Amino acid sequence: MRQAGRYLPEYRAMRARYGFLELCRNPEAAAEVTLQPVGRLGVDAAILFADILLIVEPLGVGLEFSRGEGPVIARPIRQEVDVGRLKPIDVASGVPFVFETVRKVVRALGGRVPLIGFAGAPFTVASYLVEGGPSRHYLHTKRLMYEAPEAWHRLMELLADATARYLNGQIAAGAQAVQLFDSWVGVLSPADYRAFVLPHVRALLKALTPGAPVIHFGTGTAALLPLMREAGGNVIGLDWRVDLDAAWATVGHDIAVQGNLDPAVLLAKPSYIRERAKEVLARAGGRPGHIFNLGHGVLPDTPVEHVKALVDIVHELSDRR
Amino acid sequence: MRQAGRYLPEYRAMRARYGFLELCRNPEAAAEVTLQPVGRLGVDAAILFADILLIVEPLGVGLEFSRGEGPVIARPIRQEVDVGRLKPIDVASGVPFVFETVRKVVRALGGRVPLIGFAGAPFTVASYLVEGGPSRHYLHTKRLMYEAPEAWHRLMELLADATARYLNGQIAAGAQAVQLFDSWVGVLSPADYRAFVLPHVRALLKALTPGAPVIHFGTGTAALLPLMREAGGNVIGLDWRVDLDAAWATVGHDIAVQGNLDPAVLLAKPSYIRERAKEVLARAGGRPGHIFNLGHGVLPDTPVEHVKALVDIVHELSDRR
Repeated sequence: MRQAGRYLPEYRAMRARYGFLELCRNPEAAAEVTLQPVGRLGVDAAILFADILLIVEPLGVGLEFSRGEGPVIARPIRQEVDVGRLKPIDVASGVPFVFETVRKVVRALGGRVPLIGFAGAPFTVASYLVEGGPSRHYLHTKRLMYEAPEAWHRLMELLADATARYLNGQIAAGAQAVQLFDSWVGVLSPADYRAFVLPHVRALLKALTPGAPVIHFGTGTAALLPLMREAGGNVIGLDWRVDLDAAWATVGHDIAVQGNLDPAVLLAKPSYIRERAKEVLARAGGRPGHIFNLGHGVLPDTPVEHVKALVDIVHELSDRR
Repeated sequence: MRQAGRYLPEYRAMRARYGFLELCRNPEAAAEVTLQPVGRLGVDAAILFADILLIVEPLGVGLEFSRGEGPVIARPIRQEVDVGRLKPIDVASGVPFVFETVRKVVRALGGRVPLIGFAGAPFTVASYLVEGGPSRHYLHTKRLMYEAPEAWHRLMELLADATARYLNGQIAAGAQAVQLFDSWVGVLSPADYRAFVLPHVRALLKALTPGAPVIHFGTGTAALLPLMREAGGNVIGLDWRVDLDAAWATVGHDIAVQGNLDPAVLLAKPSYIRERAKEVLARAGGRPGHIFNLGHGVLPDTPVEHVKALVDIVHELSDRR
């Protein structure tokens, strides 16, 4: 889950020097930001610092991060005709800096911990493209799905294809695992997921270079978990809104799970964090194939020492060290 | 589910004449707004027009609906000391206009269709009180829960007690059924729901006058459904993010369910609405105890004729008329 972020003073210091996109596009700086939490927190893996929308920049939709940290797409893809105009994304020439960041991070880590690369899943990326930014009800997105299903599927194919090449590029550059973030897919009914999303995620995941484990994550996915498993991935990422034991039983114990402490728990005092981390570990039952994590990214107001405390607590309680 | 609203021109006409709270407090006008969709749409029940926050106005927290339609609480309840200062809510003298609206509506309906009264559930109402308005992450609310559980439970008891009296007042005034809206409870983990919410909803529902069926609704509740059933209600309201058949099996077929078409489907053309309504009915399988409904309120941009089309489609397909 996102480790670099506004809760870290050293990240804020970097952001004072670089605009958000500028930071993403600068391999030297992006590698530094990727490495910051690893040293500071003692986590077991580094997570690539990047943004899920970098890959759509070559489409010429006018991506900006002007208002606060939220992305804005100046020319959203709302109609069938907008989709028709899109050209395949040239990943290699569009986001070479991401691959360079991966190479730098892997070199700097020198095998101490692995690097997890990542990408946004086609639905989540499409939702930004169609809405033009974050959304509450995703009505433009759903309208496109329902009213112009062929255009929708064409858009999803384009994104799935580019995303597979993007993740394969990260794997080729040295990422030891990759995570696919379908952050907002939980706004869909299971029937919509099956019809409009699943085939594209499956195609994407099938196209990945074998060998690098794939974490498949979304939020609000309690009723989508069996379908996400069907779509693929070696690990299903769970948000905090499910009981880990019940969710693991749902996706099957033959697959790994990641999760799922509510990030809001990190606002409470460490003794309380300990209690709640213990609960998550108890639900995992010591079974191999559980990756302890938050149920979503670290929240901006989180005290750094609470994040560090959680890492220590999990290490202690899971007899990992 | 909410029937009166901005998608209806006659509602917008009333709102041009009355402020939102003014409209809620005026029994004549609120009754008219309650009745508008019944005549226009041909639905099988009227839904009381009111707001879930009316009941907290007597607390003196400074409720306003100034910015657009969103509620603002000028003096939020953030700390233990704020909770300590709260006095029990005098429902009879605090919201007499709601009971008067119920009487007027029931009289006007003359038994043609029943009236469903409603209230916000303690968690959802508390979340507004604590956050001071709508929220994305509910961090103040969760922080109060985690850091000051006694204050949290006192606040929930106060709200559960007032809400029971509020709903009993609506039943006494003639409402034939009531709905408890725990709209935002889906932001909680099942463990948090069990510890911080369930006991209070159970106490509330136990205190209701027997005889009027209770619909217990929330959104994003896929993993909370068994706990919501445990908390009580004769009908569990399902949002669109679950498959109705799977969700019904989860809560048990000995209880009724309501739902669960995605309100966004109403933006698509009627032939598509028909297809999706059919899917919901197929999942209900003609089993008695299914109340067809949307999975949440009608969205502001929805064409009125699409809502009317849905009502007709459901009546036709369910052989109800």
